[in-house]
Amino acid sequence: MTHAIDALFQVIAARQGADPEISYTAKLFAKGRKKIAQKVGEEAVETALAAMVEGPQGVTSESADLLYHLLVLWAECGVKPDDVWAELNKRAGISGIDEKNSRGK
Amino acid sequence: MTHAIDALFQVIAARQGADPEISYTAKLFAKGRKKIAQKVGEEAVETALAAMVEGPQGVTSESADLLYHLLVLWAECGVKPDDVWAELNKRAGISGIDEKNSRGK
Amino acid sequence: MTHAIDALFQVIAARQGADPEISYTAKLFAKGRKKIAQKVGEEAVETALAAMVEGPQGVTSESADLLYHLLVLWAECGVKPDDVWAELNKRAGISGIDEKNSRGK
Amino acid sequence: MTHAIDALFQVIAARQGADPEISYTAKLFAKGRKKIAQKVGEEAVETALAAMVEGPQGVTSESADLLYHLLVLWAECGVKPDDVWAELNKRAGISGIDEKNSRGK
Repeated sequence: MTHAIDALFQVIAARQGADPEISYTAKLFAKGRKKIAQKVGEEAVETALAAMVEGPQGVTSESADLLYHLLVLWAECGVKPDDVWAELNKRAGISGIDEKNSRGK
Repeated sequence: MTHAIDALFQVIAARQGADPEISYTAKLFAKGRKKIAQKVGEEAVETALAAMVEGPQGVTSESADLLYHLLVLWAECGVKPDDVWAELNKRAGISGIDEKNSRGK
Repeated sequence: MTHAIDALFQVIAARQGADPEISYTAKLFAKGRKKIAQKVGEEAVETALAAMVEGPQGVTSESADLLYHLLVLWAECGVKPDDVWAELNKRAGISGIDEKNSRGK
Repeated sequence: MTHAIDALFQVIAARQGADPEISYTAKLFAKGRKKIAQKVGEEAVETALAAMVEGPQGVTSESADLLYHLLVLWAECGVKPDDVWAELNKRAGISGIDEKNSRGK
């Protein structure tokens, strides 16, 4: 089954070039890359602030906003989600080695 | 199969309370929530700047950094990834309806 | 003569507790500290992006937005501008010493 | 007398093209505009977080860091402080009118 984050990316990517009147996503694409990049920064600041003054639910909600805008930025910049997942796999792998080393200590 | 982002979260969550000398992740947890929240903001700014002045590869790499730190923040704040995915599903659903409406126009 | 940044701070500080319907500043105070802090982060991201893709005029305009919101945050948090200027004087002083050292090389 | 913020700008501007080994400012210029823009974003996030979880002293200190890096960005981008002050004067003026209007109510 397709993971939620990949499913959302597909929905977003299908909005590129759509009528800006129809959806928020199409409107965002129409505003251009600078505006989308700016939103990623803004939502990250909101997520960081939520982590300090709100509970898990607030962080969950702001994180979803952040991820949504990040996926729009990926579509805008021609980033393939699979390339990002490959990067994350590498990091999990490095951490796996860390763990093994720590067990050896 | 576990998605890369969920797999990385599991590796990260297993680092909570581990020896800060062993891994970057354990060190980050030891520095506390404010430092982790700050890193999320910083990496988002780097991602936004990469989108303006670098190619897809630069954005991919910065996005992976951003996601890694966001997952650390989730573990720190007790956010469950599945709750975030549920939020993303809702957004994809809303966009699905948008699309249907647009077809009806 | 009062410097523009101190003059603006005085105007802003006089808005605390004023009717939110009257001015943007009073409205911002009414929204609370989290919203003001968030605006400082947002305007800084816009300034950073302007530095990469716009000319000096764009950076000037975004910087003014950033400073305005920073001054609102100072008023909100009870920060005295003179205390910030004292910090800046210290930094200029340290740099002055740097310069002397560099001349001695 | 020169205001602290203008005095610091002069010290910073004099560092452009200086030996990066000599001072942090010269090193920052050598790293380039993207790094400087990034620092402005980072310090703003730290200022925003300090506003939520620290007292006035923490906000004062982070604000000084933010202003220092903003001045470096101005020097890098060819922004004249006087142009920013002129923008701030305009905003104080608009607020002054706001105030008059509010008195008339």
